[in-house]
Amino acid sequence: MSEPIPDFYAVIPAGGIGSRLWPLSRADAPKFLHDLTGSGQSLLRATWDRLEPLAGHDRIAVVTGRAHRAAVEDELPGIPDANVFLESEPRDSTAAIGLAAAVLVRRDPDVIVGSFAADHVIRVPHLFEWAVRQAVAVAREGYICTIGIQPSEPSVGFGYIKKGEGLIIDGAPEAALVESFVEKPDLETAKHYFAERSYLWNAGMFISRADVLLAEIQAQRPQLHAGLMELAEAWDDRAARGPAVDRIWPKLERIAIDYSVAEPAAAKGHLAVVPGHFDWDDVGDFASLSKLNSGGRSDNLAILGKNARILADASSGIVVSNTPRVVSVVGVKDIVIVDTDDALLVTTTEHAQRVKGVVDALRLTGDGDVL
Amino acid sequence: MSEPIPDFYAVIPAGGIGSRLWPLSRADAPKFLHDLTGSGQSLLRATWDRLEPLAGHDRIAVVTGRAHRAAVEDELPGIPDANVFLESEPRDSTAAIGLAAAVLVRRDPDVIVGSFAADHVIRVPHLFEWAVRQAVAVAREGYICTIGIQPSEPSVGFGYIKKGEGLIIDGAPEAALVESFVEKPDLETAKHYFAERSYLWNAGMFISRADVLLAEIQAQRPQLHAGLMELAEAWDDRAARGPAVDRIWPKLERIAIDYSVAEPAAAKGHLAVVPGHFDWDDVGDFASLSKLNSGGRSDNLAILGKNARILADASSGIVVSNTPRVVSVVGVKDIVIVDTDDALLVTTTEHAQRVKGVVDALRLTGDGDVL
Repeated sequence: MSEPIPDFYAVIPAGGIGSRLWPLSRADAPKFLHDLTGSGQSLLRATWDRLEPLAGHDRIAVVTGRAHRAAVEDELPGIPDANVFLESEPRDSTAAIGLAAAVLVRRDPDVIVGSFAADHVIRVPHLFEWAVRQAVAVAREGYICTIGIQPSEPSVGFGYIKKGEGLIIDGAPEAALVESFVEKPDLETAKHYFAERSYLWNAGMFISRADVLLAEIQAQRPQLHAGLMELAEAWDDRAARGPAVDRIWPKLERIAIDYSVAEPAAAKGHLAVVPGHFDWDDVGDFASLSKLNSGGRSDNLAILGKNARILADASSGIVVSNTPRVVSVVGVKDIVIVDTDDALLVTTTEHAQRVKGVVDALRLTGDGDVL
Repeated sequence: MSEPIPDFYAVIPAGGIGSRLWPLSRADAPKFLHDLTGSGQSLLRATWDRLEPLAGHDRIAVVTGRAHRAAVEDELPGIPDANVFLESEPRDSTAAIGLAAAVLVRRDPDVIVGSFAADHVIRVPHLFEWAVRQAVAVAREGYICTIGIQPSEPSVGFGYIKKGEGLIIDGAPEAALVESFVEKPDLETAKHYFAERSYLWNAGMFISRADVLLAEIQAQRPQLHAGLMELAEAWDDRAARGPAVDRIWPKLERIAIDYSVAEPAAAKGHLAVVPGHFDWDDVGDFASLSKLNSGGRSDNLAILGKNARILADASSGIVVSNTPRVVSVVGVKDIVIVDTDDALLVTTTEHAQRVKGVVDALRLTGDGDVL
């Protein structure tokens, strides 16, 4: 399992800011550039390191905003120039992954691309590898394959994938067709899914032959596909690329690949799934971040921040400290404190989802300088 | 009531740091230098302004630490040099008030001194004036007179004064002897006191002829008295003062005037009381501060800080902001957030008393730079 897969190319869409993690995540320091696990590594770097044994150093592409180019290259020193795909503005995942696929398929017609978000946390890398290797085997058979995470609890925070009929594919003993996608459930439904074992979390990982993926985009979103093809044609011509991006990119439809490709493909029996048995979290908000960093104990106070100076007593939740200030926390339960140079957030894990509303409100109140 | 009282001199001991208000109050910015009511004025300045109509501009003395001289003079521009009494280190209230009395009695043998803490909040100034004028009338009769605050609720946070037999004194219709002092009660006892109406809060205000006060100190604490006399003799000689302070001050007994003078005087029938019908608070901790600034509504979030940028939703308690940072507060109840340049405190009004423990802990952990 230690050799890279020769026909595989990993694509890391690194686009989202992660508004629900404000004021830690923000326009000029998006979530994927942060260390959210205390490992000393940014999420982007950890994603890269997880993919390198699978794809090899020179076959990992990053799709990111022009504004993040320098930061991405700092995190990934030595990334080949040809593997950095710069968006002039965010156009969601179909455009980002589709662009990479369209460019890569011109370089290698049989290439298999796998897309893996830059801002998820995954533990137990060899189980991740095993899932990806199965998914690549499935993709070689012409399926679009997703990796569905075997749930560790009845979560209401994620969408689910309903596993259907098993597939007999060499090198992918756990592969099955996807029966359907289901949106985030209520708790009762989530408990039912959890007990059933055939429901997996949708982690947005898709592995497919590039040509198969593009054909699916063409079938579902012909205009978007045409734009991507035109872009790809200009891409490897240095002089043509910039003007093509400026002309075409801003007009591309904004749509998540889940809706443009995965759901229609599932309906046609073109979508397969392999289960992921690794620990996975998309760290969607500070409640997840707190849980992720508290060693599984809800009475713990998780602390994140390289030089944090925290004095805590009888408190639980999480403190994120990005300043040299002393932070004293006394007798507060399930608290969320995020201390940055220009903004401070205090909320509770229960209200962590409402942070997005704070960001919206700050935009309206003229305090956008801290976003 | 608008003319100053000719034989009256006000003394403002401005010594304490107010540890339970850390990180707002600290060694180089003690509580009395802060605006804790959003009035735009420091507590010291407000105390001064309250006393000026009673004593006159040139007859208000401030006893403070050498380190606070410049700050005090900034707050009280034009304060006569002779009215600033500098301590080389804090020696508690008997030494501070006793020193002022000993110096002032040499300047005017019949002077009546009244001591009023620099860091209390008082509303309805004409009721304060009325109480002080009664207390001065009582003091002229040779009593040490205190002003006991008529309780507005059954507080367990203050000590109480039990009012005894009424006194017949011209100009002081409400004067009575003090029967006894009682320590902070439990809630049941406090409710009983509150219903009884003859128990008043001890606000540490003492009004007395200076010679009477000094005689009481001499009777109870002869050594301390001797030190004060020696200091006073050197005081108005510029060359002698500094060396005398350095020699004598550090050896003076540290004892609150409540214990050295008030309690023994009460036992001998020398202590009188007049009730204060004004709103009073010693703002002992952030719970008091929250209450004081929330307009009496417990579901309000009080905000303190001249240039505070606060975005609050569904929260109550208090935010004190001394930085230009945006502070977002979402769904936290009875919270206390104190945001300063080098330290942040997050606790609840329920745990406000524990802040003193934080200060002690910071001293031990080597984080004393933020105290």
